Amino acid sequence: MTDSNFSVDSTASSPGPDPAGGKIVLSGMRPTGRLHWGNYTGALENWFALQEEYRCYFMAADWHVLTTALERADEIAQNTRDMILDWLGAGLDPERSVLFVQSRIKEHAELFLLLSMCISMGRLERNPTFKEQVKDLDLKGEISFGHLGYPVLQAADILVYRAHAVPVGEDQLPHIELTREMVRRFNHHFGEVFPEPEALVTRFARFPGTDGKRMSKSLGNTIEIAASPEEIKQKLMPAFTDPARKRRSDPGDPEVCAIYTWYKKFMPEAADETAYECRTAARGCVDCKKKLLAGVVEHFAPLRERRQQYVDDPKLVDEIVETGCQRARDAAVATMDAVRAAMNLG
Amino acid sequence: MTDSNFSVDSTASSPGPDPAGGKIVLSGMRPTGRLHWGNYTGALENWFALQEEYRCYFMAADWHVLTTALERADEIAQNTRDMILDWLGAGLDPERSVLFVQSRIKEHAELFLLLSMCISMGRLERNPTFKEQVKDLDLKGEISFGHLGYPVLQAADILVYRAHAVPVGEDQLPHIELTREMVRRFNHHFGEVFPEPEALVTRFARFPGTDGKRMSKSLGNTIEIAASPEEIKQKLMPAFTDPARKRRSDPGDPEVCAIYTWYKKFMPEAADETAYECRTAARGCVDCKKKLLAGVVEHFAPLRERRQQYVDDPKLVDEIVETGCQRARDAAVATMDAVRAAMNLG
Repeated sequence: MTDSNFSVDSTASSPGPDPAGGKIVLSGMRPTGRLHWGNYTGALENWFALQEEYRCYFMAADWHVLTTALERADEIAQNTRDMILDWLGAGLDPERSVLFVQSRIKEHAELFLLLSMCISMGRLERNPTFKEQVKDLDLKGEISFGHLGYPVLQAADILVYRAHAVPVGEDQLPHIELTREMVRRFNHHFGEVFPEPEALVTRFARFPGTDGKRMSKSLGNTIEIAASPEEIKQKLMPAFTDPARKRRSDPGDPEVCAIYTWYKKFMPEAADETAYECRTAARGCVDCKKKLLAGVVEHFAPLRERRQQYVDDPKLVDEIVETGCQRARDAAVATMDAVRAAMNLG
Repeated sequence: MTDSNFSVDSTASSPGPDPAGGKIVLSGMRPTGRLHWGNYTGALENWFALQEEYRCYFMAADWHVLTTALERADEIAQNTRDMILDWLGAGLDPERSVLFVQSRIKEHAELFLLLSMCISMGRLERNPTFKEQVKDLDLKGEISFGHLGYPVLQAADILVYRAHAVPVGEDQLPHIELTREMVRRFNHHFGEVFPEPEALVTRFARFPGTDGKRMSKSLGNTIEIAASPEEIKQKLMPAFTDPARKRRSDPGDPEVCAIYTWYKKFMPEAADETAYECRTAARGCVDCKKKLLAGVVEHFAPLRERRQQYVDDPKLVDEIVETGCQRARDAAVATMDAVRAAMNLG
């Protein structure tokens, strides 16, 4: 870390105990709808681990949705609300971490504007993620200016909280490198305002959806973490199993079966027995799914119950979001004051 | 105009009489230093004419300086102050028009971010002004992301006040066209939030500097509008005249002489006599300049005097800027409320 002398003036709005000497993490999720099991076993469980070690800012990245889907703007508010209910239901602690909505903190936009002067077009166009998307979409000229600027907005998200670390998948590493370059450029011109954030690379095992492919909203193969028992049943019972096991009496291969992966995740105590009974055809797929269904429903019952309490108390949720945004704003305002002072701007 | 049904909720902070039924003009100047005679006869005199007809927002465009000169950030605050003193000295009326500083109104940055989703990179790269600069600088890859986005920030400046008209030189017409395209794209997706601003094309006669070339700070051939009599003298006496008039007894050609253009501007009553005496060699260049010097000093005396009063009362200037920024902010906040409501964002 290059930032040992770096301090953030956010003690006034300290969100609780400070397990890592004030080391700050920023992470966000795009509000694209209710969270599913894949989000849960990936990003969300990682957040629970992070809040043990860092002062965490968890962001509903609503502006980011616009960079690639302007026409879906009208869904964003509801999706944001649903996602935050999922966060709270899953047990993210709004006292401990700062839960906030990106578009409510205007300082992200101000820093985005200023950072846009600190990075060349050529550098953004060489960003591998961008090149990949351009290739996929075959529409370079049609890509919006804001889409090219996605890593600049991401950098603003991170830097406006002077975060020390950012959890990312390996594919996002180039974005953190871009952020670090902007920090070096800015600090070179204006003095040491920002720490260079470090990437906390997190590798998630591939989590299967109901069709056996990677669980992803765009594939329509998801099960929501707040799904009702009936909803879970309707999605789980027809889900993908070992396609080679055609008859009840055929032995199966649990390693290719989505159900078995879900056992390992949600009923680990029953996983070994399940694998054995699958391989020996001692248990049929229908029974196997019924047993998992009961376990999963039980696993998510506390989440569903807690989420429902928040649904039933919308004012409390408003307050939580309001408080989180205010905490985020206090930190962001302090950063931008430092930025403007360093740049000698108004 | 496409905006006859369009109204702005800014009556609460109305900056005075309303000569054009609330039609709004936005115009700005980059704070690059004290204003010179070329700025005066160009943009500033045009502003005086505009404030007779429109509700005017006059902006010190400090963020714009950063798009092409990040390293000069530290001069911006002083340059902004000097420029505003020049505005006030020249007689811009802070009661009548809204005088403000761009970077003090964060809503410009928020709208910049949102508009960046409404314009393609290809469209920005085909912008003739940008192509010209890329050609001149031969540095396409090195140009900053913010530099490519210059017209997007300009559009945000205009649209955040829902301006109906923008005074521009002919070279800036493509930027207004880009702004109109962003308006159409935005309004198409989200409803009629913005009027399509019209360009008020203003043609300025070429105004010569002390070397006979166009007066421009970068050429070092300027005379400041707030220059002292002694400063004017030191720049005016060695200034460019008809190079063919080598001896006092040679007849001169006033049409090629900077001094004669300045006569026409600042002592029009003496211009015809001057031209006649130049052509007939009845007056020498030194006498001609001395006479102009006296006239110019007199012409700018009220401006210099008024400017000095503001210099001597920095608190008053602070108040004027603060009030102007607050008026601008009120209008900008109302616009962004409408924008967020239209987009269904928080």
